[in-house]
Amino acid sequence: MDAPTLPPWEVYRALSPSEKAARLRGTDGRPYHVLFAQQFDRPFLDRLCELATRTRRIAKTKGGRLFLQSLLADRRAMLYFAQPSTRTFLSFYAACQILGLHPAEVRDTQTSSELKGESPEDSVRTFSSYFDLIIMRHPEGGFAERIAWLLSTTERAVPVINAGSGKDEHPTQALLDVYTLQRSFETRGGIEGKTVAFVGDLRRGRTVRSLAQVLSLYPGVRILFVAPPRLQIGQDILECLTAAGVPYELTEDFDAAVATADAVYMTRIQDEWDAPGERTAGEADRFAFGVRHLSILRPDAILMHPLPRRQEIAVEVDRDPRAMYWRQVRNGMWIRVALILTMFAREAEVHQYYDDLVR
Amino acid sequence: MDAPTLPPWEVYRALSPSEKAARLRGTDGRPYHVLFAQQFDRPFLDRLCELATRTRRIAKTKGGRLFLQSLLADRRAMLYFAQPSTRTFLSFYAACQILGLHPAEVRDTQTSSELKGESPEDSVRTFSSYFDLIIMRHPEGGFAERIAWLLSTTERAVPVINAGSGKDEHPTQALLDVYTLQRSFETRGGIEGKTVAFVGDLRRGRTVRSLAQVLSLYPGVRILFVAPPRLQIGQDILECLTAAGVPYELTEDFDAAVATADAVYMTRIQDEWDAPGERTAGEADRFAFGVRHLSILRPDAILMHPLPRRQEIAVEVDRDPRAMYWRQVRNGMWIRVALILTMFAREAEVHQYYDDLVR
Amino acid sequence: MDAPTLPPWEVYRALSPSEKAARLRGTDGRPYHVLFAQQFDRPFLDRLCELATRTRRIAKTKGGRLFLQSLLADRRAMLYFAQPSTRTFLSFYAACQILGLHPAEVRDTQTSSELKGESPEDSVRTFSSYFDLIIMRHPEGGFAERIAWLLSTTERAVPVINAGSGKDEHPTQALLDVYTLQRSFETRGGIEGKTVAFVGDLRRGRTVRSLAQVLSLYPGVRILFVAPPRLQIGQDILECLTAAGVPYELTEDFDAAVATADAVYMTRIQDEWDAPGERTAGEADRFAFGVRHLSILRPDAILMHPLPRRQEIAVEVDRDPRAMYWRQVRNGMWIRVALILTMFAREAEVHQYYDDLVR
Repeated sequence: MDAPTLPPWEVYRALSPSEKAARLRGTDGRPYHVLFAQQFDRPFLDRLCELATRTRRIAKTKGGRLFLQSLLADRRAMLYFAQPSTRTFLSFYAACQILGLHPAEVRDTQTSSELKGESPEDSVRTFSSYFDLIIMRHPEGGFAERIAWLLSTTERAVPVINAGSGKDEHPTQALLDVYTLQRSFETRGGIEGKTVAFVGDLRRGRTVRSLAQVLSLYPGVRILFVAPPRLQIGQDILECLTAAGVPYELTEDFDAAVATADAVYMTRIQDEWDAPGERTAGEADRFAFGVRHLSILRPDAILMHPLPRRQEIAVEVDRDPRAMYWRQVRNGMWIRVALILTMFAREAEVHQYYDDLVR
Repeated sequence: MDAPTLPPWEVYRALSPSEKAARLRGTDGRPYHVLFAQQFDRPFLDRLCELATRTRRIAKTKGGRLFLQSLLADRRAMLYFAQPSTRTFLSFYAACQILGLHPAEVRDTQTSSELKGESPEDSVRTFSSYFDLIIMRHPEGGFAERIAWLLSTTERAVPVINAGSGKDEHPTQALLDVYTLQRSFETRGGIEGKTVAFVGDLRRGRTVRSLAQVLSLYPGVRILFVAPPRLQIGQDILECLTAAGVPYELTEDFDAAVATADAVYMTRIQDEWDAPGERTAGEADRFAFGVRHLSILRPDAILMHPLPRRQEIAVEVDRDPRAMYWRQVRNGMWIRVALILTMFAREAEVHQYYDDLVR
Repeated sequence: MDAPTLPPWEVYRALSPSEKAARLRGTDGRPYHVLFAQQFDRPFLDRLCELATRTRRIAKTKGGRLFLQSLLADRRAMLYFAQPSTRTFLSFYAACQILGLHPAEVRDTQTSSELKGESPEDSVRTFSSYFDLIIMRHPEGGFAERIAWLLSTTERAVPVINAGSGKDEHPTQALLDVYTLQRSFETRGGIEGKTVAFVGDLRRGRTVRSLAQVLSLYPGVRILFVAPPRLQIGQDILECLTAAGVPYELTEDFDAAVATADAVYMTRIQDEWDAPGERTAGEADRFAFGVRHLSILRPDAILMHPLPRRQEIAVEVDRDPRAMYWRQVRNGMWIRVALILTMFAREAEVHQYYDDLVR
């Protein structure tokens, strides 16, 4: 797997997402770095979901688990988490362990070297020297991308996965959401033609912003954005959907959306980003999924949530078979397994093992 | 290993320890979760000690160590330590490594998700999704038990080991103490009939409270509780001992106890729990084991301490062959190895390997 | 590998470095503990560099990487870092992973046991119980040495590597610097006869102090110390060099040194150690390597820096092939691999594998 040759930073950063996506491909056409959700096209998503499903099937036996561990046993990954996020951290950590990929973590970045005045770029470049893959979470938007670019320009390029960068990008969250939809609708014709309702804080949740765009890759999908006006989805996303020909609707009628949708995607009111004087926490009561909604929700629909939740979904709902958020968590681990396998070009061995298994 | 079906929380929590112990067994009779010392009966303890001793014998060769690592190489454990305890953490961590069980740690629980208002139950359930075993230490009494119950009610149950929960329970500490006594008295007829003197802060040390109860499983054991009145052992423990027919004595005569006992178990004055105005630290001088006690201690007796120590045992005593506290530390690692093996039902392979070894 | 029998602490600590070095050898002549740079003699350094180079050659294939991981797969190491240093930590961590040596980390030493009044010696002895190797960084000079001595006096000795102890010793930094010089001058007759210019804060940098002494093992080496008077190298080092017959020169003429030297070793002004009222940061501008120095630097010379850097080397210099500091980082990982292999006496297997590879 050879790193792509990237243009100078000032040129690179001015490219559009799709132009960047093209440049970030390695010599064999797959993404060398995974930085934002627009890098994923439909064939890539289909292959990734299939790979995740086969991998978890293989993992059902001890022999299969040991086989998976052999795939990347000779490699090491650094999980550089400058921003705390135990759930994303553990999901990637477990994904590495499943593949035998030896993980090392950097969580506390208030290190002596940074205190000594070293630039963040120098720090990360130093740490990267020891590893074959960087999984990076950072509070600053664009940081992972700048590091990916930097490492691509050195003698020893290392692939970077963006595990959440500022408020903007969290591409593997979009992957796990797509995978959850794909699995849930597997026997109902897939994601195509389904109605997805996003509920809650659509203005500030990067999850919804990414997923809405990715859904435009599935023909016939219709989107409902269910939120009070001041928390509605950004105009930029709506323009993308329009350009892609995706029908959508903005509404405040939560109950109607629950009754209609194939998938109801609840989100948390992110009041930690409230402007001074702004009070959005109160909206949470109006857009919360309670026990009474279970009778409105279609029998074949699913209920999703990226977690963590506060009161958006009542705890009593957890046991309903349509509540998919706990499985979403596990799906996240498996789709990350599939992503890492793909970046290291090891799918063929998995498919071979799987074929032998089901033959 | 199938998880037991537990009754609703309000029903479960009202059960007595022995009723709970019965409910916590998996389908094959072994404890599915390990939460408190009353879950251990005598056959279980005997089997566990034997398994620990065989395992450490196997670990004396490289081939044996690699064999042990193969036993759980396809599994992953989460060490969730919401309360710092490096020694217990490392003991479990090393035990996992010995068995090839891949560990991941959560030490800092001030994570973003908890700041975002997620319930602790949701947090732990999320993290548990990625692992096959939870080893949990928590400052809040009963937390590990509530999580164990919660996970047992989900689609994906995960066994929980309580690695110290509040001031109440620390069952693996009792195991390592029993194992140390058993090994030390192996050639003297075992623990039966021995006199054990507990010295120091018996009121607040959960170690002594657990161990005293476990010792009632060994016929003929006699217990001396050596402490000033206000630090003496609780009446509840004495009632248990009486009910079990265990003779005991309360005393302040430290020297006499040292001269009599087969095992002298020193403990630290836990003055961090002193009530305002209470001053117990001063008692430490009266109940400290100094060089002069070495000549009083019986030649075949042993000296134990759960560590950490302050002045309860003089450093000069460390080299006396009867000082057992450093070996206690290693015993803790090995009995935890045996416990995890037992929970995963892998004893048979160890016994087979051992039989081949000594044949 | 048997631990050496050390004399009582008061006797041991009064020994000279060379006397200590002799006592720290295990039964087979190799260092049992690695505590300070004076333990390395010339044959040891030559063997270590050769081993590092062969190991990294072996690591170029998956088969070779898996072979290396098998070498210490049955062992566990504790990285006890009481002082934060992510770069040194990760370098050792990766070195352990390369060898299959299972690492565990103790970074935060504000643990409950220390709060409970346990001595640092007891803490480390407890933690050491679970591991086969201790890699220790500590802010207190001499701490690693005291622990090494302590562990050698117990029933269960454990080797200790000093990964940086106070302002005094950081022996593996000297190793990686020697290795970088050796590799860089491999085709130019080795380190012998070369001129090395140390630039910057020579008074307070332990790196330079260690390396200058080690260089005295290479005949014909000449040293330039380039610094303002108040940051010049200590008189004690100069006396050692004189005793060893190493020619040296003190100068402030940075440009002349750059034009002359085979290796220019830049260092950071450590103004965090400034006495009150002292202002040394301003010196950094005078002793910084900029783009213009590239044309003065000899075509076959190299530029080194132990990192982290501030303004001592302009970022634009990074791409010059003579800039060796990023490779220095990787060299550090490989020489640590070689050191651990040597301490565990596993060189023969590496040489055998290498011979089969190149045959």
